Amino acid sequence: VAKRLEKFKTTIFTQMSSLAIKHNAINLGQGFPNFDGLDFVKDAAIEAIKAGKNQYARGYGVPDLNSAIASRFQKDTGLIVDPEKEVTVTSGCTEAIAATILGLVNPGDEVVLFAPFYDSYEAVLSMAGANIKCITLCPPDFAVPLEQLKSVVSANTKAIIINTPHNPTGKMFTREELEFIAQLCKENDVLVFTDEVYDKLSFEMDHISMASLPGMFNRTVTLNSLGKTFSLTGWKIGWAVAPPHLTWGVRQAHSFLTFATSTPMQFAAATALQTSDSYYEELKRDYLAKKAILVEGLEAVGFVVYPSSGTYFVVVDHTPFGFENDVAFCEHLIEEVGVVAIPTSVFYLNPEEGKNLVRFTFCKDEATLRGAVERMKHKL
Amino acid sequence: VAKRLEKFKTTIFTQMSSLAIKHNAINLGQGFPNFDGLDFVKDAAIEAIKAGKNQYARGYGVPDLNSAIASRFQKDTGLIVDPEKEVTVTSGCTEAIAATILGLVNPGDEVVLFAPFYDSYEAVLSMAGANIKCITLCPPDFAVPLEQLKSVVSANTKAIIINTPHNPTGKMFTREELEFIAQLCKENDVLVFTDEVYDKLSFEMDHISMASLPGMFNRTVTLNSLGKTFSLTGWKIGWAVAPPHLTWGVRQAHSFLTFATSTPMQFAAATALQTSDSYYEELKRDYLAKKAILVEGLEAVGFVVYPSSGTYFVVVDHTPFGFENDVAFCEHLIEEVGVVAIPTSVFYLNPEEGKNLVRFTFCKDEATLRGAVERMKHKL
Ligand SMILES: CSCCC(=O)C(=O)O
Ligand SMILES: CSCCC(=O)C(=O)O
Repeated sequence: VAKRLEKFKTTIFTQMSSLAIKHNAINLGQGFPNFDGLDFVKDAAIEAIKAGKNQYARGYGVPDLNSAIASRFQKDTGLIVDPEKEVTVTSGCTEAIAATILGLVNPGDEVVLFAPFYDSYEAVLSMAGANIKCITLCPPDFAVPLEQLKSVVSANTKAIIINTPHNPTGKMFTREELEFIAQLCKENDVLVFTDEVYDKLSFEMDHISMASLPGMFNRTVTLNSLGKTFSLTGWKIGWAVAPPHLTWGVRQAHSFLTFATSTPMQFAAATALQTSDSYYEELKRDYLAKKAILVEGLEAVGFVVYPSSGTYFVVVDHTPFGFENDVAFCEHLIEEVGVVAIPTSVFYLNPEEGKNLVRFTFCKDEATLRGAVERMKHKL
Repeated sequence: VAKRLEKFKTTIFTQMSSLAIKHNAINLGQGFPNFDGLDFVKDAAIEAIKAGKNQYARGYGVPDLNSAIASRFQKDTGLIVDPEKEVTVTSGCTEAIAATILGLVNPGDEVVLFAPFYDSYEAVLSMAGANIKCITLCPPDFAVPLEQLKSVVSANTKAIIINTPHNPTGKMFTREELEFIAQLCKENDVLVFTDEVYDKLSFEMDHISMASLPGMFNRTVTLNSLGKTFSLTGWKIGWAVAPPHLTWGVRQAHSFLTFATSTPMQFAAATALQTSDSYYEELKRDYLAKKAILVEGLEAVGFVVYPSSGTYFVVVDHTPFGFENDVAFCEHLIEEVGVVAIPTSVFYLNPEEGKNLVRFTFCKDEATLRGAVERMKHKL
């Protein structure tokens, strides 16, 4: 294996989903729903396949999808973007992250990351040879330590990666935090790569896109995807919205990472994005009910549950149960209790920092969530 | 854009397919069929979508597809591989190439490339920081210059990239050439990355997989895909077969480039690969008829057509028509004749070497091929 990837292990999501199957455990680990996406979206994919839309798509996206993404971006941020020059369709947001970093970051460039972070950020920064400056967000509220951030950002900083709503904690960046970051970026000529795949799963406050802040669109790559919002995580449709000079880098890397994304799925994604707002409202209502079941259950079991404002995840402190660290706790949870959670230490540059925390997802039907809580009540 | 991608332009396939649409030209450029894949494969995708197979696949492939790939590999090479440890499903062969190179090549490693080459090889080698040693294959037969190859391979060589049947020339590596390369690799402890996406489109000779040569499996990554063989280029299902120690590197990069590939399409791909041999025989018969139409037509028009043993491409010398270079010729062909071909200079490290050659594809229905020939007969 190349040195740039030596330190990384099999992703925790793969490990945990395999263990879930092996132990026949209830999987509240990897974030995929155990219910299906809407029929009209699936029907659109079926129609596209039947209609013979099965050959290479245009590399940066089929025109219908680029337009649908631009429309949704405008609705969400108030910004008008050019679907032909500012939107790139990718094979999931993971590819959008890889294309953004490999397309825009040079070896030795400093990039600021907030821990905990989705594991691919660090791995791709390592592939790009970036110099990572990591800032830890701490419980209970995972607030950005503003002064510390200020002290690491300089004219040598190439980019800051943010993720709001935030995986794994459910933290949402506040307007104050985003404005502070924006100000630093403008002063030091820094880019922002913002992963907003959970934007439609914001419960306690309104999601704010970094690109919508004054003067920020021109230095921001906004990453998003279909899967979380439409309960079709396996379709792997993602995208990057950015001004033309940044889109150029993203597209160049994308051209050589995957070239293009599944054509029929892109047509279906275009249909999905044209859905009415009531869909998103219903989605939130459903998830709020699921979240209440899980959070109340986890509290009743005896965890310290940290507040989660968005995403379909909550992070808890497992130390009341007396295990050495998050991995030991999760092993016990799988093997003795029959429930899978994600240890958070893999989301930190320094794994020690995550040793008290584990992540549960509530993107499961209510019976599954209640079943997991019952198992924990009786066996933990 | 990051320095590693600065020298690359919009891929020639995207450029040419856009121009084809703009000028309403007959597109014999990018290699995608203008006919559709088989119904039983499309039906399998539709069934998978309906059956709710729409969430994240296992990162390295759904078990059914890994098994189907292992079976086909065994049929093709006589080698038994472990679907769980030696097969990785990717989002098209382009991603398999990227994951192989980024997962196994370190900055400064020497990698041997044969020009002309599919453009992503060079771009991804550049992302990986590899040191490219390029050897040019020359018309009429594009034979490997064995002594020259020997002189560039040393203990410093990390890998040799081969592509057989070869895009753009249609050359197939002979047993003699493959044995020579294998010997060099064993003597110097060198890996082989072999792109065999056109293996089922071998017309004049039998395809030989490098992995099937004695002692080579253990140092070879074999790359393939669904699209060319099943006329479903837009589905973007590719794979890498390699021994566990190389698969590890491929999977690590893949995990962070795309994580996983479209779930319903993987189930359909598994169904496709279980098709009987008669499918491949019929496919070859069809393509031989198409090839005859194009080759005879191009000769009648006045091109020097170089022999192509495999792929759905032929390369011609356009110099009888008096244009300065391949790009000027292709521009004239699009604008004045209404036919799109691919200039080959982009497939060379030194573009000068490709200036006499252009590539045509015959993966189009017979009427389209005849129509293109007619246009050239009358207007060139
Ligand atoms: C590849 S897993 C993607 C992210 C996610 O769903 C998770 O964090 O569980
Ligand atoms: C992304 S285009 C892939 C290769 C191909 O089809 C071509 O060479 O035309």
